Amino acid sequence: MLNYAAPLARLIEELGRLPSIGPKSAQRLAFHLLRQPQERVEGLAEAILDAKRRIRACRQCFNYTDDELCPICSDARRDSSIICVVGQPQDLLAMERTREYNGVYHVLQGLLTPIDGIGPDDLRIRELVSWVRGGGVREVILATSPVIEGDATAMFIAGLLAGVEGLTVTRLASGLPAGGDLDYADEATVSKALEGRRPI
Amino acid sequence: MLNYAAPLARLIEELGRLPSIGPKSAQRLAFHLLRQPQERVEGLAEAILDAKRRIRACRQCFNYTDDELCPICSDARRDSSIICVVGQPQDLLAMERTREYNGVYHVLQGLLTPIDGIGPDDLRIRELVSWVRGGGVREVILATSPVIEGDATAMFIAGLLAGVEGLTVTRLASGLPAGGDLDYADEATVSKALEGRRPI
Repeated sequence: MLNYAAPLARLIEELGRLPSIGPKSAQRLAFHLLRQPQERVEGLAEAILDAKRRIRACRQCFNYTDDELCPICSDARRDSSIICVVGQPQDLLAMERTREYNGVYHVLQGLLTPIDGIGPDDLRIRELVSWVRGGGVREVILATSPVIEGDATAMFIAGLLAGVEGLTVTRLASGLPAGGDLDYADEATVSKALEGRRPI
Repeated sequence: MLNYAAPLARLIEELGRLPSIGPKSAQRLAFHLLRQPQERVEGLAEAILDAKRRIRACRQCFNYTDDELCPICSDARRDSSIICVVGQPQDLLAMERTREYNGVYHVLQGLLTPIDGIGPDDLRIRELVSWVRGGGVREVILATSPVIEGDATAMFIAGLLAGVEGLTVTRLASGLPAGGDLDYADEATVSKALEGRRPI
């Protein structure tokens, strides 16, 4: 029995439910919050509630947004004839960080994962297919992560889009990470790099 | 520019202000919260606000409490003739985890740290001295951490309590941590262990 006052015990418990926050981190965070000025703590609580209340899925691409369309879909400078298909909004951000992609996105909201019962109808695959079939799209880049579920999801979608006139369907290259050491790369990565080798 | 919707950007920023939560963790936590059911997210926000609103310092020992007295000070089974003096409420919890201490506590709310301008008047030292001088206390255990500031604080308090009739002032032992390897211990720890050696 650690003799916490009830509101403190509850705060530690709630913080401990966050991913990768263990009991010790939860305690440290709770004590930290108690030492902060009232307005800082209220700022955090309001940011949590406000984001949860206002953030929803973009009507077009299912990225997070606080409007009908996300900032990317509503940006006229983005090339809407290229769609990059990702699993989660986080993956979209990884693409954006390259600053080299100027197309739009489609967020599947997951990957095909039969073991967890996640099938095609649980993802935003139908919406993607109807968008592409609607015309005006020349390339779909399948950018799901190169894990088993991501590869399977990409293959599945490629199959559905196979017949669309004038459409190129591509997959992000798999291979050695930039700055990575061949000696330290796992076999699957080296195999992929070999398979995807290109003339220089 | 990472094209976050404003409420999401704000949430990530607020989470990133927490100790040991970097930008990447803040983003992961924010996306996690957005995936949770509304009531779970509200539970967290309320726990934060509720703890901040209701938790205050115990009138007697300055431990965290949601009442006049903390659970320890209001527990009649605790021996109020022994006071264990710690820097922070977290240190009190470390003592409680041993399940071997049945006295009460006094939380200084910090340690003497001249470099940060924290002197005796910034800590709850005066309150401790008046408590002890008020009588009924037979031992004060100085359990501030064995860091420079903790040692200095302990020495300072020992000096203030030196004249009190019938009072024993002790300091937690410093030495090798249980399960620790002599070979891996730093010099200061080995020195302390040598200095504090006891007949077996």
